[in-house]
Order: sequence, then structure tokens, then C-alpha cells
Amino acid sequence: MIKVGIVGGTGYTGVELLRLLVGHPGVDIVLITSRAESGRRVDDLFPSLRGHCELSFSDPDEKALAACDAVFFATPHNVAMRSVPQLLAAGARVIDLSADFRIRDSAIWERWYGETHACPDLLREAVYGLPERNREAIRSARLLACPGCYPTAVQLGFMPLLLEGLVDSQSLIANAVSGVSGAGRQAKIDNLLSEVSDSFKAYGVTGHRHLPEIEQGLSDMTGAEVSLTFVPHLAPMIRGIHATLYASLSEAGRAADLQQVVEDFYQHEPFVDVLPQGQYPQTRSVRGANSCQLALTVPQGRDTVVVTAVEDNLVKGAAGQAIQCMNLMFDQSETLGIAQPGLLP
Amino acid sequence: MIKVGIVGGTGYTGVELLRLLVGHPGVDIVLITSRAESGRRVDDLFPSLRGHCELSFSDPDEKALAACDAVFFATPHNVAMRSVPQLLAAGARVIDLSADFRIRDSAIWERWYGETHACPDLLREAVYGLPERNREAIRSARLLACPGCYPTAVQLGFMPLLLEGLVDSQSLIANAVSGVSGAGRQAKIDNLLSEVSDSFKAYGVTGHRHLPEIEQGLSDMTGAEVSLTFVPHLAPMIRGIHATLYASLSEAGRAADLQQVVEDFYQHEPFVDVLPQGQYPQTRSVRGANSCQLALTVPQGRDTVVVTAVEDNLVKGAAGQAIQCMNLMFDQSETLGIAQPGLLP
Amino acid sequence: MIKVGIVGGTGYTGVELLRLLVGHPGVDIVLITSRAESGRRVDDLFPSLRGHCELSFSDPDEKALAACDAVFFATPHNVAMRSVPQLLAAGARVIDLSADFRIRDSAIWERWYGETHACPDLLREAVYGLPERNREAIRSARLLACPGCYPTAVQLGFMPLLLEGLVDSQSLIANAVSGVSGAGRQAKIDNLLSEVSDSFKAYGVTGHRHLPEIEQGLSDMTGAEVSLTFVPHLAPMIRGIHATLYASLSEAGRAADLQQVVEDFYQHEPFVDVLPQGQYPQTRSVRGANSCQLALTVPQGRDTVVVTAVEDNLVKGAAGQAIQCMNLMFDQSETLGIAQPGLLP
Amino acid sequence: MIKVGIVGGTGYTGVELLRLLVGHPGVDIVLITSRAESGRRVDDLFPSLRGHCELSFSDPDEKALAACDAVFFATPHNVAMRSVPQLLAAGARVIDLSADFRIRDSAIWERWYGETHACPDLLREAVYGLPERNREAIRSARLLACPGCYPTAVQLGFMPLLLEGLVDSQSLIANAVSGVSGAGRQAKIDNLLSEVSDSFKAYGVTGHRHLPEIEQGLSDMTGAEVSLTFVPHLAPMIRGIHATLYASLSEAGRAADLQQVVEDFYQHEPFVDVLPQGQYPQTRSVRGANSCQLALTVPQGRDTVVVTAVEDNLVKGAAGQAIQCMNLMFDQSETLGIAQPGLLP
Repeated sequence: MIKVGIVGGTGYTGVELLRLLVGHPGVDIVLITSRAESGRRVDDLFPSLRGHCELSFSDPDEKALAACDAVFFATPHNVAMRSVPQLLAAGARVIDLSADFRIRDSAIWERWYGETHACPDLLREAVYGLPERNREAIRSARLLACPGCYPTAVQLGFMPLLLEGLVDSQSLIANAVSGVSGAGRQAKIDNLLSEVSDSFKAYGVTGHRHLPEIEQGLSDMTGAEVSLTFVPHLAPMIRGIHATLYASLSEAGRAADLQQVVEDFYQHEPFVDVLPQGQYPQTRSVRGANSCQLALTVPQGRDTVVVTAVEDNLVKGAAGQAIQCMNLMFDQSETLGIAQPGLLP
Repeated sequence: MIKVGIVGGTGYTGVELLRLLVGHPGVDIVLITSRAESGRRVDDLFPSLRGHCELSFSDPDEKALAACDAVFFATPHNVAMRSVPQLLAAGARVIDLSADFRIRDSAIWERWYGETHACPDLLREAVYGLPERNREAIRSARLLACPGCYPTAVQLGFMPLLLEGLVDSQSLIANAVSGVSGAGRQAKIDNLLSEVSDSFKAYGVTGHRHLPEIEQGLSDMTGAEVSLTFVPHLAPMIRGIHATLYASLSEAGRAADLQQVVEDFYQHEPFVDVLPQGQYPQTRSVRGANSCQLALTVPQGRDTVVVTAVEDNLVKGAAGQAIQCMNLMFDQSETLGIAQPGLLP
Repeated sequence: MIKVGIVGGTGYTGVELLRLLVGHPGVDIVLITSRAESGRRVDDLFPSLRGHCELSFSDPDEKALAACDAVFFATPHNVAMRSVPQLLAAGARVIDLSADFRIRDSAIWERWYGETHACPDLLREAVYGLPERNREAIRSARLLACPGCYPTAVQLGFMPLLLEGLVDSQSLIANAVSGVSGAGRQAKIDNLLSEVSDSFKAYGVTGHRHLPEIEQGLSDMTGAEVSLTFVPHLAPMIRGIHATLYASLSEAGRAADLQQVVEDFYQHEPFVDVLPQGQYPQTRSVRGANSCQLALTVPQGRDTVVVTAVEDNLVKGAAGQAIQCMNLMFDQSETLGIAQPGLLP
Repeated sequence: MIKVGIVGGTGYTGVELLRLLVGHPGVDIVLITSRAESGRRVDDLFPSLRGHCELSFSDPDEKALAACDAVFFATPHNVAMRSVPQLLAAGARVIDLSADFRIRDSAIWERWYGETHACPDLLREAVYGLPERNREAIRSARLLACPGCYPTAVQLGFMPLLLEGLVDSQSLIANAVSGVSGAGRQAKIDNLLSEVSDSFKAYGVTGHRHLPEIEQGLSDMTGAEVSLTFVPHLAPMIRGIHATLYASLSEAGRAADLQQVVEDFYQHEPFVDVLPQGQYPQTRSVRGANSCQLALTVPQGRDTVVVTAVEDNLVKGAAGQAIQCMNLMFDQSETLGIAQPGLLP
């Protein structure tokens, strides 16, 4: 059994980790920390876990965490990086769901996150936890940086096209939509039901923190800097990311059977699912599931390819993908504990 | 392995049965029928099942069904009763999620459902599938009538109070609220998002078909006819039943520690969960879970007890409870395949 | 033109007052105060008002307010009572949408609101602003206490039955449901879309502050203390109150033509609308409208009458009703500026 | 008073026309037709109109319609074109909210709508009812073709940039999102709350009927064929269109002060509202209002301009714009009856 600790278990990523881990046959959750809720039973805060979790939140205790095999950070950025060096030194392996280790270049990280990085030397060691891109490196990672929710969908959608040179990498567009849980479990007027229900808006148009993360990932694929216009939007739903990706076809792209290329590319992936031509993904099809569903179209047979991709931001976009990585790191079957179908309707 | 057939798999109860059964380790789904979608892959209609179900819908074929160990009917009323006698004769056991066998008195059934019953003789044999009330009878049932969604919540809420004689059985009130999936997957203007979203209404105030079913169950508990005012409502959500039950306390009820009585009553039940005093259940806590969460209050210390109870209408109110009964009927662990926590948020 | 000032314009009641008043032909909005947003343009906070309101929020200034004909308080409780005496002394008339002057007995007010009342002597002078009950007193009121949202619907629903002696006043039940805007525009985790969307719950079961207000109003109708069980619930919608009221019919009630009684009772009311028998109100029918729609049923012809009533909590339950009272106080046509139909769908 | 007839009043566009016209001081609604609901009171179908509309639906009667000054068609396509020639001949003026007269080239119309056009000669006479583009022609129109909901938002967003030559017209992208009311009041499983709530999807990616309409309008602006990739999406809300438009800046565009250009362009328009830099529109800000709110950004200062535009699909995208045109056609103030602010929250 993998002894697991969770730091910051009171957010949506935390409770989603718990939902999945309490049913994972290879995991023993040893502790879950929260300063604010220390002493409170987890199932008092999250009654969905009644009967499934006997733990109470505890104050962060480095020694207890260091004794775990795997420590998940489900914290805002700027928390994990303050404890990770000590945990690694003590022999624990860290799976960080926050943004602290996603960007290799500390200068870029510091510009977008407005903080000095506490351990920039670890940025190069950290493995970016997108299994479809980095599976082998993940197996041996000590420090795993889980991708953001938008970056997962956008990279999975563009990856086969960029790796195969089928699109122009200098005019990529990602029009992405998120459910409100992506904004976290925080007391903000902007995310009240009365503010965001029955409405739709773009936000962060001038620049969202996921932009440099996505551009880093896409640039790795092409071996040169890409240029992406990324516009996130908020939809009146709890969970779900929907990305609509636009790219100009290269000459090779115009000649290729794009559907076949992408189907072949992902044919052995357990959690990326290319829909048959003519179907388009809906976020509800992957609600609660560790799955990214994709579709491709070239509208009017012109020069622009449109990829639509969906995921559950809390599962394939966060907790599920983190567990997928944990399975790889600890030599478990990659799909263990995260193979349930989505909740539809 | 229990060989399972499903009749009528294109509705919400059908897809929910599939969601739960594809992960059930003791079940082999042999066939799933639908006249309208015959020949179509199940995961083409329900993309959430891609990778989980290789079946296609087939025309109803009595021989194939008769060869199953268990046949689930996830059909509208007036379908199961036309096939059940033959299936039973062939040795299959039937789990009917429709209303055909819920009411023992065929005259009452015929008044509320407006049809002549096709096999009234089987009404007495049918076992009402509320395990918390009928567990032993369920184990040996050939023909199981699964309770309706409202009746499950209302009966579980009133049961301990009525069995212990703590409330007046002649002035019971059940104010119940359902999500829209309770109305089924049917093309009706009334259930369009544009009609029911961001709105709330009562319906069926003069008489809902679940009323005689509930009164039958409650009368069984008291050994005399009860009188219930039952008002169902529609809330703008997909899943969930919330029942607010009102009853006048009897003298015994005024003297009793109601919280203790109800906690004791349900202490060994895996799927009924009495919340600690001061907590109230929310439907989202049991979204996707086979659980009924309950709470009790006596507002202002007066003479009226209020019970609030929640369930997922498609799980504890339908497919989950049906599988719970199947587990009992086929000597499996009662919780097998239906023990997942709810999807929150 | 009535010169109007608004204190506390950043909440939902405030913006709703503005929405209605900017189109009211007899009103000139002179100032709108907010400490937190002082100096900010109103239409910067509420872009729906762009082109309709050139004002900016200002710090509360008693002199400027005192120069108004009418001052609306759209504040939390415990604010209005600190300024009202001075404003009245200066000759302004006050329309308080908060709870400060709704309850005549200061001891009861103080028990439920946990504060010492700042001007208990004014509690007797304050006129309770339910025009269907108090029209003449409202015309001459200096200080108007607008009813709460739940109390409006519950009182309008019970009023004809109680005044005519048709129901037992000792076992009344009000099962009420509110949209989330009733909880105000405040940063609370509990009211995030991710917490309350697609879910339903009861709250405040042991005692809600609207209970003593409703009981006071109903007791006034019968001339003796009534006993009410009041259970509020939260539905996943922005606006709307739906009340389902239960009462035992008295002998007179069993003999009466209830539908006729209630239709007659409200026949001249511009904003209470009794639906024809067999129709039930939906909250969306009155979305944005100053209207309460009602229906009556006696299920199964038994002894319990069920009244269902809907209103928009921000309009007939707050801002619209406040303007209705203002129209009466300033000798305008009662319907001026608040006669628009609801926004459906 | 303008004598108005409405053909097809049972859909969402019909009830929205009624909501706005019952409060329009210059209009007398003479008749409203519906074959399916003939004889039924309008306010029985739409209880939001109780007290506002005494009419009943009637069978379509050409004579009665011909006696109107203005006849609105709120019908599916393929209805108006069968009656319009006779109505025009009789001297009525027609305002068609359907697609029958939006596209000038009958061959294109027939390809996209799969029908033979009944009066192709009228296609050239029909005036496209986008007042910001066509105001003078609208004033004298006999036959007005109201723009579709998507086309209104997309054209208003691109118009100043294209007319001023600031963007490349050969690689335009319109990523558009609609509420479910855009799909009409029709019994379709796909639009049930249980199907589309809490979910998001693209649809019609290979080609939506609004594409040729938009391309026609944009090409008129540039004087040459434009190329647009248009991807519509469905969001879980009732009303609202949100368009996110992407275009490559031309050399002139890179040099221009885009914000200033667009503000200047729309400065005298009563119903197009350019937000200050840094604000982004939300659909709820224009819920129920005849307004299109716009914002511009050039993310990262690169070469792509992003325009976000919102409208209420039933108001500025349909009924409101139709009335705006009617006001122009009948020499009323352009804003008469449609100047209300949006319903927020």
C-alpha cells in the first residue's frame, strides 16, 4: 500500500483526491492537513465522504508528511515550494497539483506569479505530469508537477498536430471554457451562483497564468517557440473544461487524413478518447471521469482545423491525472482507481 | 457471475444501471434492449460509456432474456407486466424498476395508472424492494418491484417514527422536490432547460402516482390506513430528491429522544445515514451515490417533527437500489458495486 | 418628482431598486451611498445599468439624505435604525427594506437579531409595508418597514384563509424555497455556484428570522397567536420564492368554495394574481415582475388545503414592493413604474 | 397606433415580442396566430403575461393580417415566404424574424435551408434589419429580414474593424456561445435540462446556417469575399449570446488605437455599447435588454485582436431588434419600448 499524505484538503482538488483515493485499492491515506479546519472531521466538511473517510484535518506536520510514500499538494501556488525540498530530502515523493513547479524558467514563473521562487533549482528536476507526453519520466520522478486544467486539454488537443507538423505553430488559438469549480472553493462574490449562473463571460483575456505553461509545453513539441492566443471563459456549470482549438493547416496538414493521424496517435492511451468523425464531445460525458474526449473538424474543407476537447477540470485536469501519475510512479496499473465512467446525466 | 439483461436501456434509469453495472465485479451484462435504438452502439448514445461497454442495443428477444439470471426492466409502466410471467416461467428472476408491481391492490393500480393490469395474480408475489424494510423477503424474491424515487425517500424518513408510534399517522405531510431527470429522457417541452432552469414549481398537487404507493408502505408500518398529503415539486437540477416531512408528535413522540431513536434504527444500514443534530442534508452530497441522508428537527420545540431526507433519484431512488436488491437476491455482499461516494462538488 | 436617496446600493436589493427606479417616471434618484464603493460609478459595478444611471456611489451623508423626499435603506439589518430618527426629524420619509422595523415587539426583535434596538419607540410607528393588508396606513406612513421576502409570500397565501376563518391557525406549515439571491451579494463559500448549483437543501430549520415576522402578521389577522412551522430551503436558481402552505380546514373551510373566496378577496389587487383552478404557479412567471401568483388545492378532497404562491424575492419580495409603497405614500398611481411583465423564458 | 399582427406566437421569439410590445406605447396588438394553440388564451400558455394580454391565439387569417400595419413573423423558416407576397400586396409591411429573407442569393439560401424559395424575387427587396449597418434602408422597407442571433453579435463585433480595414478578412474566427432558448421552444431530447444543464459542447462545427448569413454581411463590409471559421456552442443558460472574435491585425490595425476607433464608430448608437478598456462583457448584463456590449483586447500585444460581444439572443438578437426596426419603419423614436435595462442578477 502506498502511504499517502495530502496537504490542503479543503479545496475542490482536495476533496476530489479524497473521493478517488478512498476507493483506490493500492492506497492508504495517512493524513490530510488544513490549518483552517484542523481538528474537524473531513466528512463534517464534505458530507459526501460520510462512511468513506474517518480522518480529521490536522495541522501540517512535516515529520508526519515526510513519513509518507507520496505527498499530494492540493494547495494554492506558493505553498508547496516552501516544503518540497525537505520532503524530498526525507525520501518522500511529491505530487504537486499547484503551479509551483510547472514552469521550468524561474524568471517566467516569477513574472506570472508575482513571487520569488523558493527553490528554483528544483524546477529543472520537476517532471511535468502529462502522461501522454512524459510517461517514462513520470515513472521515476521524485517531484511531479501536475499540469493545470486548461493546459491539459489544450496540449492534448494540439499535441498530435504539432508533433506531426500538420499546423502552423505561429497562429494557434485556444478558446477555452471552464466550469466555476476551476476558480476554487474560495469566498469570492464573483463566483456566487447569483453572479455567474445563467450567464457567460470571458476573463483574463489580456493574460492568464496558464498561457506560459501551455506555450512551454507546445514549444517543447515543436522545438521552437509557438505563439498562442488563449482566451478563457466561465460557463455556468460546476465542472468541465471545453477547449475549442483553431490552427491553420500546413501543407502537410492539408494533405493528411487528420482524423486517422489523431486516432493512431492516441490509440493506446487509456484516458484520451478520439471521437468518431461527426461526433463532438460534451463536458458531461466525462463528468467525474479521468478522460479527455477529442474531436476534429475542418469546417467547409478550408484551411483551418478545429479541435474540440473536453475533460473534467477536477479529474483529468487535476486529481485524476495526479493519481494517474502516482500509479506510474509507484508501479501500479496506470488506470487503477480512476477507471470509472462519467456521471451522465 | 450473474448474467444480466436490461430491457429499455435508453432512459436515464437504463444508463444509470449501465454506469453502475459495468463496474460491478459480480455481473456480466449480456444484453440490453431497445426497439427504437436497435443496432446502435450503447456508447454512441451515451458517450460517457465509451471504453466501458461494447454492447449495442438489440430488439427485445424473450429467449435471450429468459436465459439471463436477472432481467432488469428500466421501462415506463405497462411494459414489464407483459413479459414478466414468461420470464419467471423460464426461470429468470425479474427486477422491475417501473411501477407495474409496486401496488398490491390491482384496483388501486388500475385507477392510478389507467390500464388493466396484465397479471394481477403476480402483484401479491412481487416483493417491494426497499431493503431497509424488506431485506429477508428480497433475498428469495423471484419478482422484485423497485420502489419509486419519491416513495424511497418518504418511507425511509417516516419509517422509524411510524414503527415506533412517535407520530400521528393521520396528518402526515410530505413536501418533496425532484430534479428534472425524474421526468425521464423524453422529448417534452415542459422539461426543456429553457422551461425549467432558474425556476421552481409544484406539480401533481391534486394527486401523483407515488401517493398510493407511499400510503401503502406507510400503512403497512402502522397496521392501519395512514393519511398523507404529498406535494411534489420540480427544482432546476438534474439529479436529486429532497423530502421535507412533517408530522405531529404523539405523546410518546414528545417524550422520546427522536434523534437517538432514528440513529439506533438505522445504525446497521449501509445506505441510510442519519446526520448529526444540527446538520441538514443536501442532495449534492449523495449525487451518484446509493445513499439516503436524513436529519430530524423539532422546530421551536413545538409539536411538529420535521424530517429532511435526500437521495439521488437515479441511484438510491432507482438503479442503485435495484442493484442493492440484486446483490441480496444473488447472495452477494449487499454493497458490492454501489459503495462509491457522491460526486461533490 | 420624488427626490429619492438610496442607502446601501451595492447589494441585490439595491441594484434592483435602481433597475426599477431609473424607469419610474415620477422619480429622480438624487444619491446612492456605499462606503465600500464610494466614488465608483454605479454602472461600473453593475454594467446592466450602463446608459441608465450616471451616478457614482457616495459616502453616506446625512444632510444630503435628509434633503430627499424618500430615503430607501437597502442595507443589512442594524444600519437603518441608526439613521432613521434623524432623517424623520429632518422631514424625509423612510422606506426601510431591512429588518429593523418589521417587528413591533423590541424584545422579540432583539432575541432574533441579537442586537439592542436603537430606537424601539419607532417600532410602533413604523408601518408594515404589505399593501394588500395595510394600504391606508401606508399612504400616510413616515417610516415604512418593508416585509421580508418569505413573509410576503407566506402572508399573502394564508391571509384570505385566516381572515375568513377557514383554517386552523394552530398547525400552519409553510414550506418555502428561495433562490440564492435571497442570501445577498456577499462573499460566502456557501453560496458559490459550485456549492449550491445542481443541489437542494433545507436550512435554518430550527428557526429563521422570518418566523417571528410571519407569526406576527398572521396573528394580527386572527386576533390570536398562531402557530407556524416554517422551513426555508435553497434552490439552485437566482431569483424566486416558492411557498407551499399547508393548513387544516376548519368546518367553515370544508364548507366553503375556497377558490372563489380567494379570487374574490384579491380581485381588485393589481399585484396578487389567483390562478384558475388546475394551474400552479412557477417562479419564472414572475421573474422581474412585481407580482405574487397563487393557487389553491385540497388534495384528494381531504382536510388539508395546499396553497402554492410565487414571487420574485427581489421585486414583490423587496424592491418592487418598496416602490409600490412609495407610490402609495406619494400619491402616485400604485402601479407606476412596476407594471412590467416577467421575463419568460 | 401601429396595428400589429404576430404570426407564430407560441415560440420564445413570439412571447418575447409580446413581452416588449404589451408595454410599447405606440403599438396595438391586433392578433396573434397559432394553428396548434388556436382558441387558447395567450396568458394561459404564458402566465407571465397574465394581466398584460387579453388575446387568444387564432388561426392564421390572411385578411386579418393584411389589415395590420405591421406583421411580425416569429415562425420557423419556410413559413413567412408563403404569405409575404400577399401581405405586401395588401399594403401591410412585414418584419420577418425567421431566416426566409436574410440571404440575397436564392441558390445559397436553398443549399443551406434545403428548400426551394417561394419568392426569390423578394430576396433582393428585403432589407436586412441591422440598424447599425442599414438604418436608412430600414426606414423605408416594406419587407424586413431580421438578422439571426449569432449574426447580430458577430457582425457588430467585426464591423468597425472590417470597415476601417484594420484586420485581415481572410482568416476571421467567430467562436460563439448561445443559451438554450436559441434552439426554440420545441420538444427535443437534446435540449432537456437533464441533457444540457451543467454541460458545454460545440455543435454544427461542420457548418451552421448562420455562416452564409454572416459571411454575406461581412463581405458587404469589405466589398470582397471574407473567410470565416464559425463554431457555435451551447452553454447551460436560458438566454444570451457570447461571441469571441479573433482576427489578425493588418498593418493599419497594428498602428491604430483600436479602442478609440470602435468607441468612435458606435458613439451615437443607442444599443451598442463599447466597454471601457479592461472590462469584459457578461451575457447577464444584457439579459432582457436590447443591447450589445463589446470589448476589445490585443492579448500580449501580439498580432491578434480579440473582440468579445454579448447580447440577449431573444432581444437584440431577435424580438428587440425587430421592434427597433419597426420603430424606424414607422417613424417612432428608435428606442421606444425597448430601452429597459437588463435584469441583473
